[in-house]
Amino acid sequence: MVTTFSTVHKSVPRVDGERKVTGAAKYTADLQLPGLLHARLVLSTYPHARITSIVRDAAEQVPGVVGVYTAGDVEMNGRDNGSRNRRPLAKDIVRFDGHWVAVVVAETEAAAQDAADLVEVEYEELPVVADMDLAMQHDSPRVILEDTSSGDDEAFAHASVGGGAEAVENLPPNVTNAKRYRRGNIEAGFAEADVVIERTYRTSWVHQLHLEPQSSTAAPDGAGNLTVWTSTQGAFSVRNSVATSTGLPQHRVNVISMEVGGAFGAKYALIDPLVGALAWQLQRPVTLVYSRGDEMRSANPAPAFEVQVSTGAKKDGTLTSLKARIVADNGAYSAESAGLAGVLLGGSYRWPNLEITAYDVMSHKTGSSAYRAPGAPQAAFAIEGQMAEMARALDLDPLEFRIKNTVETGDPLPDGEPLPLIGGRQVLEKLAEHPLWTNRSNKPGEGVGISYAWWPGAMQPANSSCRLDDDGSITVLVGSTDISGSNTSMAQIAAEAFGVPMSMVNIRTVDTNAAPFAGPSGGSKTIYTTGAAVASAARDARRQALEIAAQELEVAPEDLEVVDGTVSVKGVPGRTLSMRDIASKSIGWGGSYEPVLGRGGSSISTAAPGFTIHLARVSVDEETGKVDVLDYLAIQDVGCAINPAEVEGQIHGGVTQGLGIALYEAIPYGEDGRLVGSSLMDYALPTTGNVPVIQTLLVEVPSADGPFGAKGVGEPPIIPGAGAIANAILDATGVRPVSIPMTPPRVLEALKQR
Amino acid sequence: MVTTFSTVHKSVPRVDGERKVTGAAKYTADLQLPGLLHARLVLSTYPHARITSIVRDAAEQVPGVVGVYTAGDVEMNGRDNGSRNRRPLAKDIVRFDGHWVAVVVAETEAAAQDAADLVEVEYEELPVVADMDLAMQHDSPRVILEDTSSGDDEAFAHASVGGGAEAVENLPPNVTNAKRYRRGNIEAGFAEADVVIERTYRTSWVHQLHLEPQSSTAAPDGAGNLTVWTSTQGAFSVRNSVATSTGLPQHRVNVISMEVGGAFGAKYALIDPLVGALAWQLQRPVTLVYSRGDEMRSANPAPAFEVQVSTGAKKDGTLTSLKARIVADNGAYSAESAGLAGVLLGGSYRWPNLEITAYDVMSHKTGSSAYRAPGAPQAAFAIEGQMAEMARALDLDPLEFRIKNTVETGDPLPDGEPLPLIGGRQVLEKLAEHPLWTNRSNKPGEGVGISYAWWPGAMQPANSSCRLDDDGSITVLVGSTDISGSNTSMAQIAAEAFGVPMSMVNIRTVDTNAAPFAGPSGGSKTIYTTGAAVASAARDARRQALEIAAQELEVAPEDLEVVDGTVSVKGVPGRTLSMRDIASKSIGWGGSYEPVLGRGGSSISTAAPGFTIHLARVSVDEETGKVDVLDYLAIQDVGCAINPAEVEGQIHGGVTQGLGIALYEAIPYGEDGRLVGSSLMDYALPTTGNVPVIQTLLVEVPSADGPFGAKGVGEPPIIPGAGAIANAILDATGVRPVSIPMTPPRVLEALKQR
Repeated sequence: MVTTFSTVHKSVPRVDGERKVTGAAKYTADLQLPGLLHARLVLSTYPHARITSIVRDAAEQVPGVVGVYTAGDVEMNGRDNGSRNRRPLAKDIVRFDGHWVAVVVAETEAAAQDAADLVEVEYEELPVVADMDLAMQHDSPRVILEDTSSGDDEAFAHASVGGGAEAVENLPPNVTNAKRYRRGNIEAGFAEADVVIERTYRTSWVHQLHLEPQSSTAAPDGAGNLTVWTSTQGAFSVRNSVATSTGLPQHRVNVISMEVGGAFGAKYALIDPLVGALAWQLQRPVTLVYSRGDEMRSANPAPAFEVQVSTGAKKDGTLTSLKARIVADNGAYSAESAGLAGVLLGGSYRWPNLEITAYDVMSHKTGSSAYRAPGAPQAAFAIEGQMAEMARALDLDPLEFRIKNTVETGDPLPDGEPLPLIGGRQVLEKLAEHPLWTNRSNKPGEGVGISYAWWPGAMQPANSSCRLDDDGSITVLVGSTDISGSNTSMAQIAAEAFGVPMSMVNIRTVDTNAAPFAGPSGGSKTIYTTGAAVASAARDARRQALEIAAQELEVAPEDLEVVDGTVSVKGVPGRTLSMRDIASKSIGWGGSYEPVLGRGGSSISTAAPGFTIHLARVSVDEETGKVDVLDYLAIQDVGCAINPAEVEGQIHGGVTQGLGIALYEAIPYGEDGRLVGSSLMDYALPTTGNVPVIQTLLVEVPSADGPFGAKGVGEPPIIPGAGAIANAILDATGVRPVSIPMTPPRVLEALKQR
Repeated sequence: MVTTFSTVHKSVPRVDGERKVTGAAKYTADLQLPGLLHARLVLSTYPHARITSIVRDAAEQVPGVVGVYTAGDVEMNGRDNGSRNRRPLAKDIVRFDGHWVAVVVAETEAAAQDAADLVEVEYEELPVVADMDLAMQHDSPRVILEDTSSGDDEAFAHASVGGGAEAVENLPPNVTNAKRYRRGNIEAGFAEADVVIERTYRTSWVHQLHLEPQSSTAAPDGAGNLTVWTSTQGAFSVRNSVATSTGLPQHRVNVISMEVGGAFGAKYALIDPLVGALAWQLQRPVTLVYSRGDEMRSANPAPAFEVQVSTGAKKDGTLTSLKARIVADNGAYSAESAGLAGVLLGGSYRWPNLEITAYDVMSHKTGSSAYRAPGAPQAAFAIEGQMAEMARALDLDPLEFRIKNTVETGDPLPDGEPLPLIGGRQVLEKLAEHPLWTNRSNKPGEGVGISYAWWPGAMQPANSSCRLDDDGSITVLVGSTDISGSNTSMAQIAAEAFGVPMSMVNIRTVDTNAAPFAGPSGGSKTIYTTGAAVASAARDARRQALEIAAQELEVAPEDLEVVDGTVSVKGVPGRTLSMRDIASKSIGWGGSYEPVLGRGGSSISTAAPGFTIHLARVSVDEETGKVDVLDYLAIQDVGCAINPAEVEGQIHGGVTQGLGIALYEAIPYGEDGRLVGSSLMDYALPTTGNVPVIQTLLVEVPSADGPFGAKGVGEPPIIPGAGAIANAILDATGVRPVSIPMTPPRVLEALKQR
């Protein structure tokens, strides 16, 4: 970066740091309200069954129990079996192991749990669609029998990719959506290839594994309003969902974003509609805090994918053709996961010919949702496997092969949309110079893999406001939830744009009653869009403050500068006015200026995709199949690192999750669709014991629209991990795994294919 | 009014009506917080004494007591004996009957009260300054011995009147402030007068008698922030006071305005600084709710006044001279009450010559504060007595006498400032046509009195914001507390300015963390200034919405109109866009416009004084001295009645309080400065049994700056009552009382003077 900044582009401490390390931060489950009722759920133990009876007598006898409620008992507006928000409790039929059958509400959580355990549910088993092959068959059992409307919309809008897809006809009943992207002539492309690689990749259901489980509390105020305190990524999304579930007008629902202990795509409004409806129906405050078991059985984890890919290239490394068939198993609720994966799969390299068909299918598993860069790790695992295998087959340098074929600004994506300004080549070239690449070893049993990936980013209009307070500080309001330290960056942006030190910025996420509008924190768009609105609000406030100062100092606003919160006349030492002075002239009784209240907005129409390349050096124990990660490097174009430490923190977190997806994580669905476990005993995670030191390198190709050139940074770092590890295994062993997680048994199995 | 309005100028129901009549409205005392501690005060029983010992052992033994704290125990920042905010607890010396000696904090209110009763305080009595005569003597005991800074500033800024006063030299020690206004040559004026009337008027300490007592709750959040829920007129004022008392930066204090059950000038920050300091020191939530006894002994009622006035007039009714000496007894804390009363006294008629000297004195009584039009009922009681007696002596029609002499737009006030546009003559001329005046009877024992009065109004810059929500409603934020139904008028103003029905307006007073700045609700400036900011914000939002609509409908914004929340192309039926459509295009994922967020501000520099005349018809029982009010009429210039029913409600309330001041109310201080009672058994109030039907007539001379021409309406109606009743007694009996309240014994005493 050539610009000199005062506050941005610096690793300042997080504004929420102190309260988090001291334990003072308040999470939803910490909230105590007088008369608070606790809800606990009764979950289905069958993947597909008819409920033949629910006996609640014993449960209702538990002291403190207020009631046991089933789908018919909870007054929810706009009921729709296909919508988890509108009919969260199973009606007659359970569709997955973990489906909510009933909810118990009691004076204490213990009473509610005791009673939930006493609810006796009898089932008549029904045929189960447990895998993608069955889901794709025309005569498979239907996952939803009833007609439904399309279901939840917002939770799946995570990236801005365009239309440009063809419809696919004659779909099997459990295929809810299909898209086909085409370019050129794939047969001709394959015909001119010197190598064609064809593989089928499989990925598992993985959980976002936020430390804090789903938590929501709702309380009516007795005057027709409902307040919801919740752990969410999007307060306005929750407002809409709860207004829908209760039938209240939106302005009667106020949503307060509590601290969020991790979300990663999982926290849009999974439990709030039910909690809100219960509180409204009972006219008492109700809370529901998921257990870890609830999380594993009945949350909204990331769907499993199957990706069949054929790719061809010429000897000189020119790509010729890409054909892919992507199937996403979204579980028991309709969702759109596969199409985006298709754009991602075909969007990182220049394929003169391509045909990608993407199918979303339903099965008798829990509903799925986003997980940090949804569909992207799965797509990258597949396409980067192809690139690695083609390079190997053609004896090309894998990095040069990628540099030769990387997309550039203006290239069309599979959906036909042109890529805006990107820094893809720059991250690749950065790797070419890095010692972990230039000095890569060839020790036996070790290998180095690289994986290139991208995330399109998202856009949504946003507002912010910036008030000058009478102590000379500024108060910046946003409607976005801080799930990743974003408010620290927002404060830096405001400080820089207004011209005060960070210590004079009060950044606040406020409730939906008062907040300037912002969409959910997701899609790597928080800083890119709401941050732009913050910059705009701070600049507007600065302009107002300078106008006051100009009148008071009798100069033109252009002759003024702001340094550390003091306005001075350029070139006239001592001719100054502090922000506190300006505030007092615009706030006090008889003040002669309007108080400073900046209004900012953004409606960015050009995305700022983030490109990244990861390198992993691994050792593979050929006896046990165990893979150890020895070195790890992530190079990412972040536009402008508003707070480099935070950006690096995002990369460290994303890489760690990527390693989890690569090596350890899978929700343990049995072949019959039943869970074989629902605790962290059954779900392996990366830990400090097996995550290496993660090196990061930030590349900064400034975006045109983001604040100070910033781009979204949250999602790219989770994407390349599985591909990099798998390619390192290929380098070490000659075999490239095609299924994740690459657990020791799977690696051993793969090695047998040699 | 000639303009046609859709929403303003209509008597719509109050937005807070339903929650108030159903009991759902939450007042501060309704707030339940986990672990809430209750504070109760130990009050001095002497008006002036040295504390020789405080024995707390017994109190500390009461189960549930957390602690007993005296001035030395509470860590308050910036301690200052002269400031009630900075040293609310007596240090060594008590200065009034009711002075806070200690505060007990306990787990329950009952335990706190029991313990407070067990705190043993011993005193050594000191000489008492109990009346104004003693306070004005150079050798009287000093009410404050220690040097102090000037004390509380904001609570006394209730009207915008200018400087223009002379300093007065050589003041006695208990005179904290003196001002002299001069014009012309008063001796020459008296010399040319055909009649000179000289009287001394006396008024009593009166309590604002809000139904809801002073109440405040403060809670630390464990992360360095303090939240205050309080019954206040000014949330930002409380924020400042609590930041001062705790030493916290302002941005660490968040103040939430709860419902206010009456305030009338009493609720700026009387108890919040102590409650905040206790909560901060104990790091636990603390609440203090005054009892009625606390209110009578230890609140901040209106000061007593003594007004000596001489006025002269010629036979033809031309005024010649005014000389006045005003003394305000502000009690044990310094305050500025008298100067404003001086401007009010001399500001309603054209006095070619005047000299008004105003003294603020201290005494050993509780501290005083504002009470609805502070100083104005007292000033009007005096000057309207002069006008009545001069008219009677000169045998002039009292109304014509006033019409002849009323000030007009542009006339100088006693402080030299010119009067802005006023509607004084208009209200007088309206009375001239009214049957209660034209048909006034002359039955024995009955009389009709009139009293003319004015209130200058106040100004303070303010902001507001206006957000278009995705259901097409608008959310309007203000920082002003709704103490009088003002938010209903705000909603009407926003609806009118934006172009939607009232039902689509969500008006919200938000906490100081999020609120657009607004000063306290006082000085009759809320609608005039914050209302103007609301209109500005709604117009800005409308402009933004129309710009979106213009792009969508492919026309110029000028070609659009808004009717009932729908934008249409003028003259093109069916070419429409609802506000909901506009919202969806500016809020949704991928939306292409900035969300609509209007920013409004006002910094009005011209006041809009409110003039009013009241007429009372009374009967006087010459046997008992009892005065009954038979008819009552209030005519007031309100600029534009945003909500006529609310304006009339304000007038009804103000008149009733004026009748209380006239006939019943006096805090029962004995001659020794001790209270002879501290309950409503000892403080008479007007009730439905003795308040007549109040007729109102609204005159509308639109202001230039107020929203839709509105002026402040809250304060004028309390002003003329005492003068009107006294003048009616004069009409009935020939004697004009000079002391209020005009209780039967006082009226009998006055009649003896005949």
